[in-house]
Amino acid sequence: MSGPIHVAFCAGRTGPWRIDRLQAVAGPALPSAPALEVVEGGTRPSQTGAAWTLRGVTSFARYTRESEQAALAAVQPPLGRPAATRAALIPVSKSGAWWDLPQDRRRALFEERSRHIATGLGYLPAIARRLYHGREAGETFDFLTWFEFAPEHAARFEELVAILRSTVEWSYVEREVDIRLSRDEA
Amino acid sequence: MSGPIHVAFCAGRTGPWRIDRLQAVAGPALPSAPALEVVEGGTRPSQTGAAWTLRGVTSFARYTRESEQAALAAVQPPLGRPAATRAALIPVSKSGAWWDLPQDRRRALFEERSRHIATGLGYLPAIARRLYHGREAGETFDFLTWFEFAPEHAARFEELVAILRSTVEWSYVEREVDIRLSRDEA
Repeated sequence: MSGPIHVAFCAGRTGPWRIDRLQAVAGPALPSAPALEVVEGGTRPSQTGAAWTLRGVTSFARYTRESEQAALAAVQPPLGRPAATRAALIPVSKSGAWWDLPQDRRRALFEERSRHIATGLGYLPAIARRLYHGREAGETFDFLTWFEFAPEHAARFEELVAILRSTVEWSYVEREVDIRLSRDEA
Repeated sequence: MSGPIHVAFCAGRTGPWRIDRLQAVAGPALPSAPALEVVEGGTRPSQTGAAWTLRGVTSFARYTRESEQAALAAVQPPLGRPAATRAALIPVSKSGAWWDLPQDRRRALFEERSRHIATGLGYLPAIARRLYHGREAGETFDFLTWFEFAPEHAARFEELVAILRSTVEWSYVEREVDIRLSRDEA
């Protein structure tokens, strides 16, 4: 891993990704918009007057152990695969009760009880994924997860999302928006 | 714990804390200045044209386990005790090699090998302490630690700092500045 990657997800009138669906899962939704631009680094978005902009930054692994990191690294695909014309952006915030837990209790809820890493591993390399953090920078959402996959893996992605939402870890999620996107093949 | 506390340490011509010493321990120093103001929340510093401003935010515990958190909570004093007229501000950044390690390896280096929590516990309640994070917000330093203690505990504070700097954890520190301060009794 090199340095942190800063991202801005800018929803508005134009952008390479079409927003096909935007639903509130917990807490308030976000305003609807037809398109999304994903801007990395300090680059300025090409449009002004975005409906909304969500910002985040990649960071170190909070829970992943050495053996898990090695297993993930072996099968983790890059973003931007030409056939990956479907995407999801899922902004999530967890409750104060979650953040007040000591590290070992959060790890146990995250993995030993909820199998977050093990479950995600089962969907690799079909579902590419990158996690951005927003909490420490005072952003609206604690996390922004960006997923990319080919249309033939759409059903598997629904399964992954449903499994994660049924876990005890997810009982600490107090806000979640589910945004689905598509683009033309590159 | 309530919500995150945002802080700005503003060094300049005026402020309640006198800067008695400012030394680079690793990497470049910071410009010298006679005084420091500690500004919490969104409040604006009372002076303009600060020599430097360092920002950070309190956050969740990255390594502390339940038993350790309980032990700390039992003896941890608040900031602002009237007799605590000595302080230290120690900004630190760790290397990319540290941040790339999986969570279990960082925890083992931090506590099982370096005894960071156990050592600090031995100096409570004499040495009050608050840790602020800057890395995820793109600040210059990964961490800002603020310590407060009475003059009669100054020698114990030197001991604590020397022990921590001798640990294997500290071999991952690539920049560190040591700033010592004092104020009149409140």
